[in-house]
Amino acid sequence: MSALSTTPACIAVDWGSTNLRAWALDAHHVVLARTSSPRGMLSLSGPDAFEQALLETLEDWLPSDASGVEVIICGMAGARQGWQEAPYLKVEDTPSPLADQLVRRRVSVKVQDPRLEVSIIPGLCQSSPHFDVMRGEETQLAGLLGQQPEFTGSVCLPGTHTKWVHLDAGQITRFSTVMTGELFALLGRSSVLRHSVTPDSLDDARQRACFKDGVTSALARPAELSRELFTLRARDLLDPDLPADASRSLQLGARLSGLLIGLELAGHTLALPSLAPVVMIGSAELCQRYQLALECLPEKPASLLYTDLTLNGLTHLHQLCRASTQP
Amino acid sequence: MSALSTTPACIAVDWGSTNLRAWALDAHHVVLARTSSPRGMLSLSGPDAFEQALLETLEDWLPSDASGVEVIICGMAGARQGWQEAPYLKVEDTPSPLADQLVRRRVSVKVQDPRLEVSIIPGLCQSSPHFDVMRGEETQLAGLLGQQPEFTGSVCLPGTHTKWVHLDAGQITRFSTVMTGELFALLGRSSVLRHSVTPDSLDDARQRACFKDGVTSALARPAELSRELFTLRARDLLDPDLPADASRSLQLGARLSGLLIGLELAGHTLALPSLAPVVMIGSAELCQRYQLALECLPEKPASLLYTDLTLNGLTHLHQLCRASTQP
Repeated sequence: MSALSTTPACIAVDWGSTNLRAWALDAHHVVLARTSSPRGMLSLSGPDAFEQALLETLEDWLPSDASGVEVIICGMAGARQGWQEAPYLKVEDTPSPLADQLVRRRVSVKVQDPRLEVSIIPGLCQSSPHFDVMRGEETQLAGLLGQQPEFTGSVCLPGTHTKWVHLDAGQITRFSTVMTGELFALLGRSSVLRHSVTPDSLDDARQRACFKDGVTSALARPAELSRELFTLRARDLLDPDLPADASRSLQLGARLSGLLIGLELAGHTLALPSLAPVVMIGSAELCQRYQLALECLPEKPASLLYTDLTLNGLTHLHQLCRASTQP
Repeated sequence: MSALSTTPACIAVDWGSTNLRAWALDAHHVVLARTSSPRGMLSLSGPDAFEQALLETLEDWLPSDASGVEVIICGMAGARQGWQEAPYLKVEDTPSPLADQLVRRRVSVKVQDPRLEVSIIPGLCQSSPHFDVMRGEETQLAGLLGQQPEFTGSVCLPGTHTKWVHLDAGQITRFSTVMTGELFALLGRSSVLRHSVTPDSLDDARQRACFKDGVTSALARPAELSRELFTLRARDLLDPDLPADASRSLQLGARLSGLLIGLELAGHTLALPSLAPVVMIGSAELCQRYQLALECLPEKPASLLYTDLTLNGLTHLHQLCRASTQP
């Protein structure tokens, strides 16, 4: 990271559990520079370590004579065990526009360094039809709604803990978190299946077919998931139709992924009569995997992909902050 | 372990992945001594290490002048990566009585020490309706069938990889392995849920109620498992009805167990119209947990508990070995 020729008007920060990403923006929200580091919440010893970590990350963006550069943060920095708690907004009590509520309920953080003016965006919680929480995804949703204020449909944010969010005319009606990504990692790396499966991208047509077979099986018989998992191991030992080379474990890995995403879709489809349209927000690889899974549904929903809307969300929120503090 | 006053007529061994258990028996199959060690298959460097490990385990049972003591082994010692492969019997091609087939297809192992005469019992495999394997459980089934040769019904062997076996007039018609126990351990110890759940026995009435709630939820909505898992975390953060003390994570741990066993039962119940009777073979704690889960089914099947039938199985098989080798 090299020094900027101009002091940024605002710095947008996505402070997650494992990573920290930051963008330096000018007054028109043009990106002057970007950086990232592995200094996520879990790498820090406690609330006192956040300011120093932030300063080290932003060091070249803040000349010594800068004063009060706005830093707007979303993500786990606002968790109870983060920098300073930004209490969840209850989805039930959050009228649209979402962004207005997020800005109104942002939390100011007291810092030592006079060059920083820090605020943290709250996450969302839900107590019905089931308890659920998000931190960070609400900012991406604000980014989406900045572009499509009256959006109606489902949003899927695939990841370690994939979120499904349902919106009606720009208002979040409910959301669900599933542990699909974490289950895939645990089963593929730490269970008996690690001997039989290799997690990989779905580049190969045969892998894609195995993935879709897995999705279809789980959609048809979600209750048999636990048995289907062990069957991957037994097939590795017994199935004469599997190839003998490295593509064997790639195919079984693709099926494992399909089974878990299929289970997720089975639960989701039952809960939601009409899926269309689905907006996907996440890495291209993961979104494409979910798109492939959606193709296995009897009624294939239309889908639309965004790789990341965090920066869009943060700039949209910053714009509202400015508007709300202007005389 | 101290020296025996008499040389055993036979030594029965259950050689699993992580543990080795052995029983010294007299000519009437009365137990003279028993021992166990953590020298399971996974702790050994390869096939050559098995004889030495066995000798060290049995050292006091074999006087220097003993000759040809029969050692009958079941379990992972017969796996491809074990001592010597005892190829699986195909369930489809295995007429009853099971024990006769297991004895006929046992594999003799060449050993250096003249005091040992070692054979390994094969496991079972299945290729339809799905691929599946077992090693060790077939011996427990032989133990059950030694007592009830014409048994008809389901046998559940709970464990890391729980087996459900269906028998008709003493013949195995099919079996299924589910990964419930391993999923519970991975989720409870290595996932984000480790912050919220404590795995424990179900001693407390409140924990039992949470467990049964979990079973009932999974039976009713198996497709929502992945969402139910994350909900445990969200409830820990949000649910005002959970106790604030240590019983909080015990209740969530009990629900996690219930959800996973409920999913297993949902898959099993769909596959099998009539469950009655169910024979449980396993640790008392696990069997009682499964009994509690069975009580959540609309038609509660009768159940019968055995803590362990491995020794019964091995002695039954040894009896047949003797009969088959007598002139």
